[in-house]
Amino acid sequence: MELKSKILFLQEIDKLKQIERKTLTHTGDRYENSAEHSWHLALAVLVLHPHANIKNFDAFKAIKMALLHDIVEIDAGDTIIYGDNSQKAEKEMAAAQRIFGILPSGTESLKDLWEEFELKESAEAKFVGALDRFLPILSNYLNDGHSWQEHKVYYEQVVEKNKAPILAGFPDLWILTQKMLEETIAKGNLLIRG
Amino acid sequence: MELKSKILFLQEIDKLKQIERKTLTHTGDRYENSAEHSWHLALAVLVLHPHANIKNFDAFKAIKMALLHDIVEIDAGDTIIYGDNSQKAEKEMAAAQRIFGILPSGTESLKDLWEEFELKESAEAKFVGALDRFLPILSNYLNDGHSWQEHKVYYEQVVEKNKAPILAGFPDLWILTQKMLEETIAKGNLLIRG
Repeated sequence: MELKSKILFLQEIDKLKQIERKTLTHTGDRYENSAEHSWHLALAVLVLHPHANIKNFDAFKAIKMALLHDIVEIDAGDTIIYGDNSQKAEKEMAAAQRIFGILPSGTESLKDLWEEFELKESAEAKFVGALDRFLPILSNYLNDGHSWQEHKVYYEQVVEKNKAPILAGFPDLWILTQKMLEETIAKGNLLIRG
Repeated sequence: MELKSKILFLQEIDKLKQIERKTLTHTGDRYENSAEHSWHLALAVLVLHPHANIKNFDAFKAIKMALLHDIVEIDAGDTIIYGDNSQKAEKEMAAAQRIFGILPSGTESLKDLWEEFELKESAEAKFVGALDRFLPILSNYLNDGHSWQEHKVYYEQVVEKNKAPILAGFPDLWILTQKMLEETIAKGNLLIRG
């Protein structure tokens, strides 16, 4: 019976493939979905974590967080960080209860891992959170600032929403991010409110 | 410079989101791509590995294998296991050289992990391989045998291609798979050549 519950969980989370994000894939021909984004984030964690210089960093835990960090969007949807997110936490908590609750008790709690990611207190949560902020910036950098232009997001908002989380988890990455933002501004693809 | 090479690698593998597989997502409205499939497989490994009863099983290694097992398809494309795969190994090896070669040397070798998966000798490779065979069967079970009907695949071929790999990595899963195949036959969605 435990095996069947776990397969029902796998059937449920397949729905994450239908959740469209606000960012484009790098080829720019369609929006990416939250399942493939989670895969990309997990690989980013895998290849980049040695650069974070964090003592006793648990890379396995971080990759598990990346894999499951967006599963709650099956019920709560994807939200843009630049918009009104007042209902987000409540909706996502209910989603975590329902979806992770499909798994039999007594197994490793994926809900606990998701909560740890949301809290952004542990080194692993901060690191995964930093890369989760970086990947949409990379997509915008490669796609003429598409989602910033579409949602009328200014440079100051990008800095306000991303600088602290990226610095908190992966300081060296912010230096690179800053350069990418400057190049995007120079190309006229990200506007300064001034 | 190492950080930049790794980000170039992340840009390169974003292309896996464009590689269409022969199986549908569970909702059945489109083909899944290899990036979201790799995410689904990694989560399947995460929740199901305790059921495999394998001593000293390295779940982290298995999840890394799941994440990168299809990256070579960026160059080599997705192939159906029921078709002619004579050129597959050579094309995929060249792809592994090129794509994993973007990463700086001195870091954990993802190419070695991919080769270990391909060889199907280690317990982790066998387990991930078993689930990689199971997930398309689950999709077909939920979608009226869609890809079996589309590619005129008979029950005997499904057994021939999947029974040994699933048994080798996760014996209990074959019992469940067999039941799913029988239900699909009973519904008229998988034909027996007889």
